[in-house]
Amino acid sequence: MSSDAHPPEASWIEVSTENCSVQAALRVVGNKWALLVLRELFNGVRRFDEICVHAGISEAVLTRRLKELVTEGVVEARPYREAGQRPRQEYVPTAAGWDLFPVVVALLQWGDRHRAPQAGGSWRVSHRVCDTPVEVRVVCPDHPLEHIDHHGTRTAPGPSAITRTP
Amino acid sequence: MSSDAHPPEASWIEVSTENCSVQAALRVVGNKWALLVLRELFNGVRRFDEICVHAGISEAVLTRRLKELVTEGVVEARPYREAGQRPRQEYVPTAAGWDLFPVVVALLQWGDRHRAPQAGGSWRVSHRVCDTPVEVRVVCPDHPLEHIDHHGTRTAPGPSAITRTP
Repeated sequence: MSSDAHPPEASWIEVSTENCSVQAALRVVGNKWALLVLRELFNGVRRFDEICVHAGISEAVLTRRLKELVTEGVVEARPYREAGQRPRQEYVPTAAGWDLFPVVVALLQWGDRHRAPQAGGSWRVSHRVCDTPVEVRVVCPDHPLEHIDHHGTRTAPGPSAITRTP
Repeated sequence: MSSDAHPPEASWIEVSTENCSVQAALRVVGNKWALLVLRELFNGVRRFDEICVHAGISEAVLTRRLKELVTEGVVEARPYREAGQRPRQEYVPTAAGWDLFPVVVALLQWGDRHRAPQAGGSWRVSHRVCDTPVEVRVVCPDHPLEHIDHHGTRTAPGPSAITRTP
């Protein structure tokens, strides 16, 4: 343990945010267009022109966002060619990209609950087996049936916590 | 069902994104600072000066972000007064704000997994009862023990889907 490793009783304000994982994730998706591009890819809209039109993104912005998402390893460009057409690319989520699926579904769930409570959402994600709409939950792997909210959690510095220098 | 309600066999590209719940949620948190402010509030850092210093946000940006979060109903300003000090405000998540907890924990989980795989994270969120680190999962309420990923889901237009006009 290095001398700047954090004592276990520390609170969040005493821990440096420089290596915060939320922040690291937001370097990839801390931008609404990045998340809207992922929404398109997750739902099978994967061609440049189609993403532009469907999500209402300008070509310049989409080019930049896709480049960043590819650089960050969450999206992969794959060549495809339709009969009689020139070769083109489509964009597919990588395994790391699919790990952002819960983030997008959590946003969908929040929007359905708080911005479309009467109407129901315009898009539903359901369990393939029984078609029940899925939920995003905070779960304890050792007590998977318990529905945990923030009252059921505690927070503490993790293994790579660094003490903040004031 | 109105004439523009969507037939059930439709795919995402045929549905308008204008009333998409992901998009509605991103009007509130589609900005990295909004999510970093929520990270601070969720972890008990709730005073203006402390949030500025800890998250590394300028006063001008924090003022703007807090105003938006209050307007959107996810954060509430509460007066407090310490002995001998002038009255001040602290910022606390509302119930709708706490409903964004899974979004922030999902980002934390992604960052821990993909940007700090060796080190472990700098901040852990665990189950209060047993201290096991929590996970954010996509869950079917009717099959809560099943670990669902995107392969286990299907998507379809929801009740308020509107056909996209090309």
